[in-house]
Amino acid sequence: MNLLLKEIRHNPLLWLLVFVPAVFAGQALKPDAHTLLFALSVLAIVPLAALLSHATESVAAKTGDAVGGLLNATLGNLTELVIALTALHAGQYMLVKASIAGAIVTNTLFMLGGSFLLGGLKHHVQEFNRGSARMQAGLLFLATVALLIPSAVSGSDSTTGAAFIEELSVGLAVLLIVVYGMGMLFSLKTHRELFASAQAGEAGEAPWPVGLALATLAGVTVLVALVSEVFVESVQEAAVAFGMTPAFVGFIVVALVGAAAEMASAFSGARKNRLDLSVGIALGSASQIALFVAPVLVLLSYVIGPTPMSLQFWPGAVVMMLIATMTAFLVTNSGRSAWFLGVLVLMAYFIFAMTLYLLPPATP
Amino acid sequence: MNLLLKEIRHNPLLWLLVFVPAVFAGQALKPDAHTLLFALSVLAIVPLAALLSHATESVAAKTGDAVGGLLNATLGNLTELVIALTALHAGQYMLVKASIAGAIVTNTLFMLGGSFLLGGLKHHVQEFNRGSARMQAGLLFLATVALLIPSAVSGSDSTTGAAFIEELSVGLAVLLIVVYGMGMLFSLKTHRELFASAQAGEAGEAPWPVGLALATLAGVTVLVALVSEVFVESVQEAAVAFGMTPAFVGFIVVALVGAAAEMASAFSGARKNRLDLSVGIALGSASQIALFVAPVLVLLSYVIGPTPMSLQFWPGAVVMMLIATMTAFLVTNSGRSAWFLGVLVLMAYFIFAMTLYLLPPATP
Amino acid sequence: MNLLLKEIRHNPLLWLLVFVPAVFAGQALKPDAHTLLFALSVLAIVPLAALLSHATESVAAKTGDAVGGLLNATLGNLTELVIALTALHAGQYMLVKASIAGAIVTNTLFMLGGSFLLGGLKHHVQEFNRGSARMQAGLLFLATVALLIPSAVSGSDSTTGAAFIEELSVGLAVLLIVVYGMGMLFSLKTHRELFASAQAGEAGEAPWPVGLALATLAGVTVLVALVSEVFVESVQEAAVAFGMTPAFVGFIVVALVGAAAEMASAFSGARKNRLDLSVGIALGSASQIALFVAPVLVLLSYVIGPTPMSLQFWPGAVVMMLIATMTAFLVTNSGRSAWFLGVLVLMAYFIFAMTLYLLPPATP
Repeated sequence: MNLLLKEIRHNPLLWLLVFVPAVFAGQALKPDAHTLLFALSVLAIVPLAALLSHATESVAAKTGDAVGGLLNATLGNLTELVIALTALHAGQYMLVKASIAGAIVTNTLFMLGGSFLLGGLKHHVQEFNRGSARMQAGLLFLATVALLIPSAVSGSDSTTGAAFIEELSVGLAVLLIVVYGMGMLFSLKTHRELFASAQAGEAGEAPWPVGLALATLAGVTVLVALVSEVFVESVQEAAVAFGMTPAFVGFIVVALVGAAAEMASAFSGARKNRLDLSVGIALGSASQIALFVAPVLVLLSYVIGPTPMSLQFWPGAVVMMLIATMTAFLVTNSGRSAWFLGVLVLMAYFIFAMTLYLLPPATP
Repeated sequence: MNLLLKEIRHNPLLWLLVFVPAVFAGQALKPDAHTLLFALSVLAIVPLAALLSHATESVAAKTGDAVGGLLNATLGNLTELVIALTALHAGQYMLVKASIAGAIVTNTLFMLGGSFLLGGLKHHVQEFNRGSARMQAGLLFLATVALLIPSAVSGSDSTTGAAFIEELSVGLAVLLIVVYGMGMLFSLKTHRELFASAQAGEAGEAPWPVGLALATLAGVTVLVALVSEVFVESVQEAAVAFGMTPAFVGFIVVALVGAAAEMASAFSGARKNRLDLSVGIALGSASQIALFVAPVLVLLSYVIGPTPMSLQFWPGAVVMMLIATMTAFLVTNSGRSAWFLGVLVLMAYFIFAMTLYLLPPATP
Repeated sequence: MNLLLKEIRHNPLLWLLVFVPAVFAGQALKPDAHTLLFALSVLAIVPLAALLSHATESVAAKTGDAVGGLLNATLGNLTELVIALTALHAGQYMLVKASIAGAIVTNTLFMLGGSFLLGGLKHHVQEFNRGSARMQAGLLFLATVALLIPSAVSGSDSTTGAAFIEELSVGLAVLLIVVYGMGMLFSLKTHRELFASAQAGEAGEAPWPVGLALATLAGVTVLVALVSEVFVESVQEAAVAFGMTPAFVGFIVVALVGAAAEMASAFSGARKNRLDLSVGIALGSASQIALFVAPVLVLLSYVIGPTPMSLQFWPGAVVMMLIATMTAFLVTNSGRSAWFLGVLVLMAYFIFAMTLYLLPPATP
């Protein structure tokens, strides 16, 4: 507990934890102040995500490479998963899908571009391991293909029925989870050495004792779930108040909030001239959303959602995911970066954000 | 003849030749048993394709590099060509186009992915010549672009007339064949040395005497044509019986059957840690379909088909070809592979196959 | 003036200057001979573009690296800009947009492919700096993304209003110009050394004194503007007479005419085995069109055009730009080229040209 408090004292991001009780107070006292509740819940989720991330890594560090890697791989996007599950339970499939697509785009463009820019402002030219970046970008591309196919096939022809899309989505979800399991076998067991350096890097901070970590993990997950409920309830009304389209909220706001903790790690790695770490976090996290979070949500929609959710995305989101993964491949291909590369990648992100912000609300 | 029998005794694939007479017997006795005839003709084409492939290589080995290379390049996809010609003659353009698109996708995803997986299960990490793989992937991409353009242009706008698509298809076909001829000049004459290693590799087995090889070539081509006729006649009805869509049959079944012989070579090369050979067969064969087989079919449709055939594909097929060629580029770009890369490439193929299998029959 | 005449005597391209007075004579005497005026204006623009290019380089050489680079970067596509401005003023937005898309495609496919082919016919295999080619191809890809987004988003859904496209286009234009400015800061100031070799190469010819260069720059720009007016006025009618679609005229004819001077430099560099120079001119010029010329035209349409112009392109043009930039990336990725690579890249260009030539005029 002492350690937890010490961690909080040293990490300014965690001072935002004060907004966690504020959310619950706000909800009890002013349940209709949607804009306020939205802002409070966003501010509360960020430090909770950081705590979750640190707790996961601490458990992982203690349990050895294989189990630890498994934990990291499964819980690495826990915040995104919990927010999406809350939205799924509320039947807000448009928000769920936008946040899946947005998380992939945000991780590959904003996190990668920000790392290149922040690192490049400090270091003239930065080098990173081209081989592993290429492999990760290849995985990400293939993982994204699965999300594109239902939209590509049905988008081109409106006579394809809903039953087809539903069957296909379940089939793809099962296939993706199987491949995800094989991917863990690959990175944690048969070809561990290829991923060794990145793993070692992530455990830079002092890990917590396993008891504290597990307790934090459990407690914070519950808190994230509770805050997410407020967030999902208030987000629609707040979006109207801020003049934001629902597509913008899901794609940009939810994705940035959910990925805040990983972003802090990726950016700090880039400043320390450890771009391998930044690239690994950004592309690894995006692959995980595509290969694990998205199919789990499709399958769980049969259990906890009002109706089944498909993997069919709005065509604009498909284009953005495709461009994001191709960008990831192109920019990591040379193994070198400088600040302007970061500007260009961020530009692509801002173009997407601007498009979604201006898009008439009825469209997507 | 002795050599031919010896070859058959040593190669279990060739034992399937027993199905060749079975097809003709079946057709004579039970002309309406479409499902049976379909299964028999599939089983008969596979060993015939293997014989064709071996005969072509034997003639090539005897006639020297230039003529031999020319033969290999022209007859390498003879099985696919004969099947497609039979379907063309029967006016089944949907099947012809699906088998062109399917052959490109099957060669680049299934053959390449299978080689990576099978090779990777035996060897920890495999290296292959990055430079030549990149060049071949580049050729393949550009070859595929020609097939995409008519669909991309007309797909976006339904007012473009049929006359435009027809003129454009003939123009593209002539252009592709001219480029294909230049490509042979390049790989067999001016820059032979760049392709030397792959050629030498393919002639691993003992070649037959030229007389036997030529006789086999002629005889087996006739047999393939006769069996293809049964295959094309029965495939539609069999598809219904098996619950397969016509798109699935053309894209997956015909493509796998036609490429079976090359696949055996590519997979065996991968097991022997000669991935250069596997990558060369997979990408080279796909390029050949795009640059030679497809345009020849368009031009011949004016001679042997009931009406002219265009190069306009169903939009879903265009997306799949584009993703397949981009995947080929991304995965060969690093020059290294391990088993999980094979799993990912095969996953993309299974996603396509699943989509086509589930697709409502009326759509494509 | 002596120098100017000497230059003209030695450079056969400049003998075409005789067509400049011919255009004005033609316009005065036969204002309705559209086909003649079109041909004369095309022939007159080519040498003027060459003069502009040489004058810009001469000023750049005298004013030092930073200002010179700035000048080169801003005036490098001055011919294209002046032609487009004339068309913009005449309200011919379809021609303006076709010429933007066409300039990107022509620079990346025709100029790059022609350089590879012409260089490859003289040199067996040519090597070029892979690193900088990759960076430039990456920049080009991201620059093009901005042009694709409005079409991708609105193309998929016809309910998005014109107001949205207009707002988005202005936003994108501002963003692109900001990024373009940062790109100059990058290439001229913070990371000058990465671009040093290409710059030095371009100033191969003897520079003119700064007075002559500035006078030429001013005088020739006025001439280009005057000739462009004749060109834009006559192009529609001439297109009908030659059986060319408006899309073909904008995409192919205008783009080739505008880029003639740069093409001469790129091709001559390739013959001298200095492919770095050729690749730099081709990709740099294409990026400049996307990042600077296109947004400037959008913003200026509010000032000099009859109505605002958007960045929304015809879907076929989007596909062509995307394929062109991907091709640029794929073919420069290996850092080696031979003549057949040039044939393939040119083939892609001819495919586009053929498609546009055959396209029914009503379509785009």
